[in-house]
Amino acid sequence: MRRLDTAASDFEPQLQKILRAAAEPDREIEAQVRSIIARVAADGDAAVLEYTREFDGVEARSPDALRVSEERLRAAADEVSADVLDALKRAFERIRRYAEKQKLEDWCLQEDNGTTLGQRVTPLDSVGLYVPGGKAAYPSTVLMGAIPASVAGVPRVVVTMPAPAGEINPLLLAAAHLCSVSEMWTIGGAQAIATLALGTQTIEPVSKIVGPGNQYVAEAKRQLYGIVGTDMPAGPSEILVISDGATAPEWVAADLLSQAEHDERARAMLLCPDGNFITEVAQVVERLAVSAPRAEVIQQSLASQGVLLKVRDLDEAVAISNRVAPEHLELSVADPEALLPLVTNAGAVFIGPHSTEVIGDYCAGPNHVLPTGGAARFASPLGVYDFQKRSSVVHCSAEGAAELADVAACLAEAEGLFAHADAARRRK
Amino acid sequence: MRRLDTAASDFEPQLQKILRAAAEPDREIEAQVRSIIARVAADGDAAVLEYTREFDGVEARSPDALRVSEERLRAAADEVSADVLDALKRAFERIRRYAEKQKLEDWCLQEDNGTTLGQRVTPLDSVGLYVPGGKAAYPSTVLMGAIPASVAGVPRVVVTMPAPAGEINPLLLAAAHLCSVSEMWTIGGAQAIATLALGTQTIEPVSKIVGPGNQYVAEAKRQLYGIVGTDMPAGPSEILVISDGATAPEWVAADLLSQAEHDERARAMLLCPDGNFITEVAQVVERLAVSAPRAEVIQQSLASQGVLLKVRDLDEAVAISNRVAPEHLELSVADPEALLPLVTNAGAVFIGPHSTEVIGDYCAGPNHVLPTGGAARFASPLGVYDFQKRSSVVHCSAEGAAELADVAACLAEAEGLFAHADAARRRK
Repeated sequence: MRRLDTAASDFEPQLQKILRAAAEPDREIEAQVRSIIARVAADGDAAVLEYTREFDGVEARSPDALRVSEERLRAAADEVSADVLDALKRAFERIRRYAEKQKLEDWCLQEDNGTTLGQRVTPLDSVGLYVPGGKAAYPSTVLMGAIPASVAGVPRVVVTMPAPAGEINPLLLAAAHLCSVSEMWTIGGAQAIATLALGTQTIEPVSKIVGPGNQYVAEAKRQLYGIVGTDMPAGPSEILVISDGATAPEWVAADLLSQAEHDERARAMLLCPDGNFITEVAQVVERLAVSAPRAEVIQQSLASQGVLLKVRDLDEAVAISNRVAPEHLELSVADPEALLPLVTNAGAVFIGPHSTEVIGDYCAGPNHVLPTGGAARFASPLGVYDFQKRSSVVHCSAEGAAELADVAACLAEAEGLFAHADAARRRK
Repeated sequence: MRRLDTAASDFEPQLQKILRAAAEPDREIEAQVRSIIARVAADGDAAVLEYTREFDGVEARSPDALRVSEERLRAAADEVSADVLDALKRAFERIRRYAEKQKLEDWCLQEDNGTTLGQRVTPLDSVGLYVPGGKAAYPSTVLMGAIPASVAGVPRVVVTMPAPAGEINPLLLAAAHLCSVSEMWTIGGAQAIATLALGTQTIEPVSKIVGPGNQYVAEAKRQLYGIVGTDMPAGPSEILVISDGATAPEWVAADLLSQAEHDERARAMLLCPDGNFITEVAQVVERLAVSAPRAEVIQQSLASQGVLLKVRDLDEAVAISNRVAPEHLELSVADPEALLPLVTNAGAVFIGPHSTEVIGDYCAGPNHVLPTGGAARFASPLGVYDFQKRSSVVHCSAEGAAELADVAACLAEAEGLFAHADAARRRK
């Protein structure tokens, strides 16, 4: 892991480099994705079948063969151990309970003249949830996407995921069944995103697509954004730990490692005013990394993206964290409540040494789909609100309209919009 | 205006054509915008000055010359008539009052073992508000962007707008002053969006950019999305009027015209079960269009985008409206409250014949920045919530962590993430 010190004269340019780490879009991926989307738009099912053969090695004669049946979803629980199934249900309940708190309700402002102004909240009519295959085929992703959609009241939740060589993790199916998803298709990559956005002869399009994915999936969402709703593109996962040096170094090291095991581009950062503690953590990290089952990924990630940063004090640590705007922030300090009000940009904040980010990944309750790559400056965790939309409601009484018509007409004329002014004045 | 009938055998393909009207991205604009962004990223101020000279014909030696001074903002009110200034203030107050209702608050779930789970809401630290020049230089846009940002508590609101040949509408400056914006720059087009997103030597970047703009502005927002937050790209404006045939045809016609005068691509649709009423409205539209000050724009817009649709009944009208997902929906019927629950997709709903959309454009209270082009299926009006972000907060007690550690570790192992399991288990 790289060791830095805020007191060093070249610290600011080094921090700038870390902040600018966002990768340039890859022109080749962009072009490939563009052609996949165009083919799905033109040929529908046939294109989907062809790409699934090419990329996943699955031969299917019709799209129906790519649909996971209700029976298969129901039966999956039998293939999963009772312990794991129990854990899944515990997580499900906790995630649902947290999500319930996020539901937005209608409201209405009543004016004396009878005019009412309101906000109406309705669920999206359909949502696509992309679940990545390969390295990151996580059942927890199904829970984190499908539960808030269901709490919002979305009537149609479609899960899609690649099944290379036809294989699917039964725990993933069990999770989908637990969440009562409406449809599940084994279609992956940019072709899945195009299918969800545009529809084919067999598969109805959805109104919004959420869920993580590789660069092809992210690029397809970017290109189709506007035709369909999408969540923020997800970059590599990140943790930033602020420690006062009093937590057990093993705890801090284990949390950094858990982030690093995600993939080679995952980022783990420790900010601490105590240089000796940083050295201790570095030693534990090195020791644990060697024997970890995913040692290679961890070592690559820590070498390229790991940062150990000595700060002057905890206030400086928070100030730097706010500039990084990390996906996960741990306040592993004696008095975390004193620091929390200073935190402005972070996807999820874990308070105190016991709150390991890993508990948040699975079962604390809040969503684990969080803004990455500095997007916490402007974006929020996935939640029920992502599956609801608001409509403004304006109901003018005759009296209210007459009053407001003058105001509107006056401003419309000042803007040179005379037909606007005319429409308003007719309500007097 | 095109006349259609849902009873016609070829109605469905005709509706499909209307729904698919979203324009393909223009490859040439895409490339031009890419090069503008690259130049601003590389050369900062110098690039901005050069583009401002080229596109707006304004010669400035330094970016400071493009900043609108505090004094100029303050003095602008003197150049505006008292009537218009009063109307602006009335609108300001009503928009602010509606926005105040949208503020999200923190919340917290307390568990018996001392664990707390919460959601923390904080304002964005900085926001850029793009105000288009030329045809659509509207002071109301300043109110609709700056007021919710200020209600959210955003400390830095930066307005930017093109000032071709150095000219600025004083009403626009008065609106900016009324909203106490932090900075105002006369920079337009893709170079303004690049400046706001990336910053230059003189201008600090912002965290999110909102506001309408031409195709260059929309494309720049699309390309920079992720590096900076953006609102939905705004397409041409739309109105869909559902009438039972009992409203004065002049009112309905005037509302259709007010939409059509925005620009040549604006869309006005009338859905009504009464064929005679449709004919009447069409006649009034034709008569009014000829004498309207913006007759040319109106006639082009109505010819290319106007639709008069005879429906079987009002329920069918709402069902079609839900597929269109219009930016503005008027329920100009005797019992609008009976139809409202059936409406699923619409940016803003105007209830009853007195509620002309124009009042909503200026002063009813709700925002006039609304999802267009069918985006109301998944997106919402601009509001305070666009200028706030949420962070999840997880504070596990020792007992809570011990309980959840097992659940998390069990699921982590099932996903093959052993460092995750290790980090969780250490909290037991």
